[in-house]
This record gives sequence, structure tokens and C-alpha cells, in this order.
Amino acid sequence: MNEINRVETKTEQVEQKLVNRVNVTKLFDMMDGIRSKPVISKFNFRAKGKWIVGGHNQTTINDFYGAGQTHSRNRPFVYDGDEPPILLGEDHGANATEYALAALSSCLTTTLIYHVAAQGVVIDEVETTLSGDVDLQGLLGMSENVRNGYEKIKVAFKVKSEAPKEKVRELVELARKRSPVFDIISNPTPIEVSFEEQTG
Amino acid sequence: MNEINRVETKTEQVEQKLVNRVNVTKLFDMMDGIRSKPVISKFNFRAKGKWIVGGHNQTTINDFYGAGQTHSRNRPFVYDGDEPPILLGEDHGANATEYALAALSSCLTTTLIYHVAAQGVVIDEVETTLSGDVDLQGLLGMSENVRNGYEKIKVAFKVKSEAPKEKVRELVELARKRSPVFDIISNPTPIEVSFEEQTG
Repeated sequence: MNEINRVETKTEQVEQKLVNRVNVTKLFDMMDGIRSKPVISKFNFRAKGKWIVGGHNQTTINDFYGAGQTHSRNRPFVYDGDEPPILLGEDHGANATEYALAALSSCLTTTLIYHVAAQGVVIDEVETTLSGDVDLQGLLGMSENVRNGYEKIKVAFKVKSEAPKEKVRELVELARKRSPVFDIISNPTPIEVSFEEQTG
Repeated sequence: MNEINRVETKTEQVEQKLVNRVNVTKLFDMMDGIRSKPVISKFNFRAKGKWIVGGHNQTTINDFYGAGQTHSRNRPFVYDGDEPPILLGEDHGANATEYALAALSSCLTTTLIYHVAAQGVVIDEVETTLSGDVDLQGLLGMSENVRNGYEKIKVAFKVKSEAPKEKVRELVELARKRSPVFDIISNPTPIEVSFEEQTG
């Protein structure tokens, strides 16, 4: 028997359904995978921060754990955080409370798009406008009656789609209901802070 | 009388105290300003989000309101959000839950540094390591017993300083107690979502 005939590869065309460029076939495969082996759904995201100088700091994001293994990006994402001059910084990047708005916007948008795709609804445009009120007396420890963080955050969605308005409204509501960052901001999330001093 | 003598300018050298490159003189001036006119402490931060395609979106941060007026940066900050391929994205940036960790890291670091500077303590290095556990069954709506967001976030600080270890520990505790993003994640923050459909 000819060795060439015993080891073969062949290319199979597998049709993938993409809605809003979300691969819905893979999304449903992932959900099937989780149903048969729930541990696949456990993820651990990570970040490393470094103080640069004054109000300037940098956060590096690269590897994460998920679906049973650690994954690394091709390159790390590095985000500069700083304060504007009025808050004694040099504007090397958005400040931390602005990053929190970015996290919320990104999360609501992705959650909307993935759920919309799963339902086969085509979306043309999604825009969000966010704002949050904060009183610096909290951060500065000047009043015990003022909270440190946002008193309230407002998010306005604009969605362009051929789907009926009521359907889109329902999907925006679903995004709100399912978004991880909406959850961690609107509900209490335990944060454990530990500390190690390096001397020398 | 000579007109030249009636309108004069002069340059005065004002000594500014900088600790860890935080201008502590300006920090105390700001606090004095707030004490005499508390409205100065009211800030409103803003972000605009845009869906690009699939899991990819962009958040733009520029203007904010504070100390009685609107401020614009010299250039906007634009942050790409995306998912890694295992979560059906193309890795154009960190995902939203990772941005939330970046916001928390940046906020704890800046809060630490500003309070440390106010107390005149010199810091050499600050590093943070963050991680958060999340179960995708929440986001995907597969279980009502699983929350959407992080079940728990861990933050480990490394601080290098000549200050006594107990002093540094006390200042890390103060950062935790005063950080705006620590507050919005660990405590409930109201988020109002509104929706406008653009047809056509």
C-alpha cells in the first residue's frame, strides 16, 4: 500500500453565519460547549499597573485565562492614565473615572451587538454618549456626606437599524440586563486589596 | 502722570512644592478654593462610544466640566475595545472588563499618589497587579444564578518607599477608602440608560 494514501488531509468548507460581523456559528458552538462542560465559561482577566510620575500611570493588559487555558495576545495593550492640568496632571491619557465610562460604553455596545447577532437582527450603527457626575470632595476627603465616585451615570444610545423600533428597544434593554460592566458598576462587586512593601 | 507708570506687570517667583511630581501647593490651593466655593468641586466626565464592527468599538474622551467651566483637551483620547478571537473578536484592544481593571488600577494609583504627596511622603515605585473572575454564563444569559460581572476582583499593590512600612500600609488603605473607581465598583452606582432609534 502506498504511504501517500494512508495519511491524508482534506479541506472541508464549513459554512459560518456572521451577523454584524459576529460569528454566530461560533457563538452558538461556544454556548453548546459551555452547556456540556460549564468550566469553559470561567474567565480570569488581568491587568498590571505602574505609576509613572505625578498623576501619570500606565496599565498593561495582555494575558487572560479562559476556556481552560491561558491566552496571550500578540502584543500587550498599554493604556496611559493621567489627569488634566486642572487636576494637577499633564494629560497623557484619560483619567480613571473616564476609563470607567469607556469600559461601560464598550461593554454595553459589545453586549448589545452579540445578543442582537444571536437573534439575527442586522444593525447599521450604534453610538453611545455617557456622562457621570462626581464631586471631588469625596476623593479629597473633605466631606463624609459626599461619595468618592460617580453620583450617577447617564448613558444615551443611538441605534440605526431596519428592525422595528420596539425590537431595538428590547435589545438595548437586554444589553443593559446582560452587560458585565453595567453589573459591576450598578451592583456591589467585592474588591480585595493586598499590599506588599518593597524596601531598598 | 506718565501712562506707562499706571499699568504695570511684574513677574513674581512663587515657590511651588512638588512631591512625587504632584504640585502640592496647587492641590492645597484647590482644596482652599473648594472650601470657600464648594461648587468648584463638581465635575462631569464624558465619553462617546461608537460601534465599529463585530466585537470592535471605539470610545472617544475629550471634554469635561469642572470648577465651573467646560474644558477641552488639546486632542481627544481614542480607545479601541474588542474581544480576543476566543471571544469572537479581532483583538483591536482590551475588552470592556479589562478596561474596568485599568480604570481601577489607575484610580487607586492616582489616589494613593495624591494623598501621599499631600502628606509629604516620597514614593519611589508603585505597581499593581489586578485580576477578576467572571463566568460567561451571565453575559450569555445561560444561568440566572451567575452574575454578569466580576464575582471578585483582586488588587495587589507593591510600593517602594523610604517611609516606614506601617505608614505606607496606612496610605494604601487611604487610597482604597478615597478612590472614586473603587467606590463605583464596590458600591452600587445608579446608571440611567436612554435610547433613541435612528431610522433610515
